[in-house]
Amino acid sequence: MNAQMMQQPLLISSLLVHAERHHGDQQIVSRRVEGGIHRYTYRDMAARARRMAKAVAALGVESGQMVGSLAWNGYRHLELYYAISGSGAVLHTLNPRLHADQVSWMANHAEDQVLFFELSFLPLVEAVISELKSVRHFVVMTDREHMPSTHKIPGLLCYEELIDAQDDHYTWPQFSEETASSLCYTSGTTGNPKGALYSHRSTLLHAYAGALPDSLNCSARDVIMPVVPMFHVNAWGLPYICALVGAKLVFPGANLDGKSLYELIESEQVTMAAGVPTVWQGLLTHVNSVRGRFSAMTRTVVGGSACPPAMLQTFIEKYDVQVVHAWGMTEMSPLGTVCTFKTKHLDMDKESQYAVLSTQGRPLFGIELKLIGAGGEEVPHDGKTPGELMVRGPWIISSYYKSESTAAHKDGWFATGDVSTIDPDGYMQITDRSKDVIKSGGEWIGSIDLENIAMSHPSVAMAACIAARHTKWDERPLLLVVTKPGHTLTSEEMLAFYEGKIAKWWTPDDVLFVDSIPLGATGKMQKNLLRDRYQDHLLAAA
Amino acid sequence: MNAQMMQQPLLISSLLVHAERHHGDQQIVSRRVEGGIHRYTYRDMAARARRMAKAVAALGVESGQMVGSLAWNGYRHLELYYAISGSGAVLHTLNPRLHADQVSWMANHAEDQVLFFELSFLPLVEAVISELKSVRHFVVMTDREHMPSTHKIPGLLCYEELIDAQDDHYTWPQFSEETASSLCYTSGTTGNPKGALYSHRSTLLHAYAGALPDSLNCSARDVIMPVVPMFHVNAWGLPYICALVGAKLVFPGANLDGKSLYELIESEQVTMAAGVPTVWQGLLTHVNSVRGRFSAMTRTVVGGSACPPAMLQTFIEKYDVQVVHAWGMTEMSPLGTVCTFKTKHLDMDKESQYAVLSTQGRPLFGIELKLIGAGGEEVPHDGKTPGELMVRGPWIISSYYKSESTAAHKDGWFATGDVSTIDPDGYMQITDRSKDVIKSGGEWIGSIDLENIAMSHPSVAMAACIAARHTKWDERPLLLVVTKPGHTLTSEEMLAFYEGKIAKWWTPDDVLFVDSIPLGATGKMQKNLLRDRYQDHLLAAA
Repeated sequence: MNAQMMQQPLLISSLLVHAERHHGDQQIVSRRVEGGIHRYTYRDMAARARRMAKAVAALGVESGQMVGSLAWNGYRHLELYYAISGSGAVLHTLNPRLHADQVSWMANHAEDQVLFFELSFLPLVEAVISELKSVRHFVVMTDREHMPSTHKIPGLLCYEELIDAQDDHYTWPQFSEETASSLCYTSGTTGNPKGALYSHRSTLLHAYAGALPDSLNCSARDVIMPVVPMFHVNAWGLPYICALVGAKLVFPGANLDGKSLYELIESEQVTMAAGVPTVWQGLLTHVNSVRGRFSAMTRTVVGGSACPPAMLQTFIEKYDVQVVHAWGMTEMSPLGTVCTFKTKHLDMDKESQYAVLSTQGRPLFGIELKLIGAGGEEVPHDGKTPGELMVRGPWIISSYYKSESTAAHKDGWFATGDVSTIDPDGYMQITDRSKDVIKSGGEWIGSIDLENIAMSHPSVAMAACIAARHTKWDERPLLLVVTKPGHTLTSEEMLAFYEGKIAKWWTPDDVLFVDSIPLGATGKMQKNLLRDRYQDHLLAAA
Repeated sequence: MNAQMMQQPLLISSLLVHAERHHGDQQIVSRRVEGGIHRYTYRDMAARARRMAKAVAALGVESGQMVGSLAWNGYRHLELYYAISGSGAVLHTLNPRLHADQVSWMANHAEDQVLFFELSFLPLVEAVISELKSVRHFVVMTDREHMPSTHKIPGLLCYEELIDAQDDHYTWPQFSEETASSLCYTSGTTGNPKGALYSHRSTLLHAYAGALPDSLNCSARDVIMPVVPMFHVNAWGLPYICALVGAKLVFPGANLDGKSLYELIESEQVTMAAGVPTVWQGLLTHVNSVRGRFSAMTRTVVGGSACPPAMLQTFIEKYDVQVVHAWGMTEMSPLGTVCTFKTKHLDMDKESQYAVLSTQGRPLFGIELKLIGAGGEEVPHDGKTPGELMVRGPWIISSYYKSESTAAHKDGWFATGDVSTIDPDGYMQITDRSKDVIKSGGEWIGSIDLENIAMSHPSVAMAACIAARHTKWDERPLLLVVTKPGHTLTSEEMLAFYEGKIAKWWTPDDVLFVDSIPLGATGKMQKNLLRDRYQDHLLAAA
C-alpha cells in the first residue's frame, strides 16, 4: 500500500530556491582569477543562475545534454552548478590537472556541447581544440573587459555577455529525481578515465547526510571554504550543502598557497575549510612563519589521503582547530565516512583520541560498509581483521558512465579497491589498496603498515613494500628501501627494527636497497612498476 | 537522461541495520510501566524487532495491513516501530488520550488487524472491544509475570511470549520507499479524526532533515529523551532520528511528572529532551522546589504550542538550557520549522535574542512555506504582513487516509490553518488560527496578540478575542474578559490599556465581562462556542 504523501522530487534547483528565500542575504565570497575579491549574496547568485539557465538554453543545450567546465572554485562556477543541473542538463566538471589528451578524451566521451573555462585555462583549451568533436560553443568565464585579445578559438563567447543578454524570469523545471545532474571522471593509473554520473536524488541525499552533526556539521552560522576543487567530485558536495543550510561560502579561486588561503580564512572569518593534506601543509607552514593563529576556524576537513599524525597534532594542539577525517571516492559522491567522536572517546587521554581521529571514521547513514576477506567471506568488524572494503548506498554509482559493466560490483555492492578494518564502533581504517596487499598463505599483510614502520627508521628516506612471489606462501613481503644520504643500513638492522612492532610473520622476507622509488604524477609510489621488476626476487633467491 | 547511481530505497529497516552495525553498544533506557528501569542496546533491540516481525507475520499480518498500538514511550513500542513498518505492514499509533468512541472509530477506520497495548490501557481496550470490527488479536505489551489475571478479552496474547516463540533470523524485505509505514490520526474540534499515512521515504527524509545542526542537532554523543508521546506523530520523528545518528535513547514511560522526568534526566545524563510546554512547566516547578540543576542537558525542544516567554527565560538564564522552538503538524510528519540563530543574532542583546527565539523558526530544507493574504495573493516575507500559511514538501500529506479529497490543498500546497508572518530571514511566527483571525475591512487582525495584551493586565484572569460581525467592516474584534477574583475593571480601562501597544485600528470595539471561558479537553479556548454566542453582539449594539 502506498502512503499518501506529496510527491516532491529531490531536485538541485530546490536548494537554490530554499537558499534564496530563507538565506537571501547570506554572502558568497570569491577570490577572482581576474584579481580582487568578489562578493555577493545567495539572492544575487540565484538570479544570475536563472539568467545563465536561459543563456544555455539559448545556446541550444537541451535536457540531458552535457556542458563542460574547466574552472577553479568561484562564484561563476557555482552559478553553473545550479544553472546547468537545475535546467535539466548535466554539468561535466573537467579536471584541468590531467594531461591534455585526457581532457579532450573526457570532453569527447561525455559529448560536451558547450565548454565553459576560466582565463587560466585558455592555453589548455587552445591545445586541445582541434581534438574536440562535440563542443559547439566555447565560453570564457569572465567579463568583456578581461576577454583575451588574441586567441585561437573561433566564435569565443563571454560569460558576462551571456548573462547580460537574459533576464531572470525563469522557473526551474520539475522532473524525475533520478535525472542525471553532473558528471565527474576519475583517472586511474591505467586505462581511460571513468565517469561517475550523479543524479539529483543522489546529490540531495548526499547533501543531507553530509551536513549532519557527525558529518561535516554545517549550519547557517558557518563560513565554509571549499579548498578541494569544484572539478573534483563537486568539491565534496559543499556547494550543495552550503545552500541547504544557508552557510556563507568562501571560494579561494586559483591561489591555493598558504599565504593566500590564510588571508582569506582570517578576513572572511572562515569557520570550516575542506581540502587535502598537501594544501594544509602549505597553510600551516605559512601560519607558523608569520606566527599567526586562526581567529574563527574551528575545524578543518581532511580528505583525499590520510592526515599525517604530525599535522593532526599541530592543528589541534597548536591552533585549537579540530581535524575531521573524511573518506570517500569519486564513485561515492564522495562522502562515505567521517571521523567524529562517540561519547566514550570524550574523556580519553590525548593519545587514544588521536588514534581514533587517525581512522577514516564512521559511515554516514545511507552508506553501508562490509569487508570481504581473502576467501570471499565477510569478515568481522573487530578492528583487526582486514578485508576488501565494499560499499552500498543511494549516492554510489551502479556502473560507470556509458558502461553497463558492473565489473566493480558484486551482489549490488561496489568494490572500493581498498583493504581496511572496521572496529566494533564502526570506525573504518584503510590499511592498503587491494592490489598492493600481500596475500601470504591465505592471510593478508598490509603493505602500508610495513612501509610506515620502515620510514620511521632514522636512516630511511623512503620505503616501499610489495608482494613477492613465494613457492610455499604464494606471496611474501619484500621491502625496498632508499637510505638517507650519508646513512648506512643493513638488511639485518632493518628487519630487526620490526621486532615488537608487528606480528612476527608479517616481517618482510628480504630487504633490497635501491637508489630511488618511482613516483606517479600525484606523488604516489608506482608499486606496479616495482612489482614488475622485483616480484620474482624471492623465487630467484630461493 | 537518468543517472547511473544505485537504486537503494529509503527504508525504515535500514535505520535499524545501521544502528545495530555501527552503534550496536549504544543504550536504550526505558522507565517501565511494570516498574523499574529497563536497559539494553540497539543490538538487542534490533534482534528483538526481527523476532517481533516474525511474530506479527505468524499472526497473519500481511504487507500493507494495519497494526494498532496503545502505548507509552518505551522499548517495546520502539520495537514495534521497526518490526511493523520494517516488515512492510503499517504501524497505527492510537492516541489513548482521546475519547473511547474516537479510539474505536480510528481502529475501525484503519482496519487494525492486531492491537498492541500496554497494561495501563487494559480498561480502555475492555471498554471499546465490543465496538472493534477488524482486530483479530490483542497483545498486552508485557511479560507473562505481569499479564492481567482477570480481563474481558478473549485469546489475549502476551508480548514477551510472542517474542520468545521466534528466533531472530530474519532479513528485512526490500520494497518501494513510497510504501506506507505508519499512520497517525489528528483530531480536530469537529468531525471525525483524520489520518496521516506516512511513507518510508517521507520518514527517512524527515529524519535526515530533523537531525541537522539547525534542526534538532542530533549526534552519537547525544542522550535524547522524547517526552512527546510516540502515539503523537511518531514522537516528532526522534525514534528514527536517534537510530540514524546513534544517539542514546531515554524513554520516560507513563510518568511525565516533573520529579520522574528530572530523576531520569539526571541519572541518564540526558542532553536533549523534547516535549510540550505543560510538561516543561511541571519539570521546572520540581527542579526549582529541589533547588536542582541540569548537569548534562544542553537544550530542550519545545513544540505543540508556543513556549511562554517566562519559561524560555527560566530555562536559559536560570538553568543554562537552550530552548529550541519547533513547529509542525501531524500532517507534516511533523517538523516544519525549528528556531536556531543565524550569525547576525549571536552578538545581539538578550531581549533581541529572545524575540528571535520566540518565533517558530526557519523551515528545514525540504519544507517550503508561503503566505496567502486575505485576497488570495501571495504576501511578502517582511515579518509584518500576515497570511495563511501554506506548506509543501516530501513529508507532507497529499490527502488524508482513505480520502482522495484534497480540500486542504491548493495548487499542490497544504493549508495549515494557521495565520503567520515570515521575516526576511525566514523566521516564521504564527499569529493566529485562520478560523480565529478577525477580517476587518479586507485586513487581518490577529486575535492572539490582542488576548496576550489583555492577559498582561493585572486584573485579567483570562481573555478571548473573537470576530464579531460588523455592518461596515464585516468583522471587528470583540474582547471577552474574565477578571481576577476581587478585581474590578471597566471596558474603558481595558481598552485604554491597548494604547501604544498596537495599531489603533486593531483596538477591540467592545469588551464583555464574562464569568468563564469554555476550554476544550486539551486546555484550548473553545472560541467556536464563543463565536456562536457573541458574534452578533456588535450588530445588536449598533
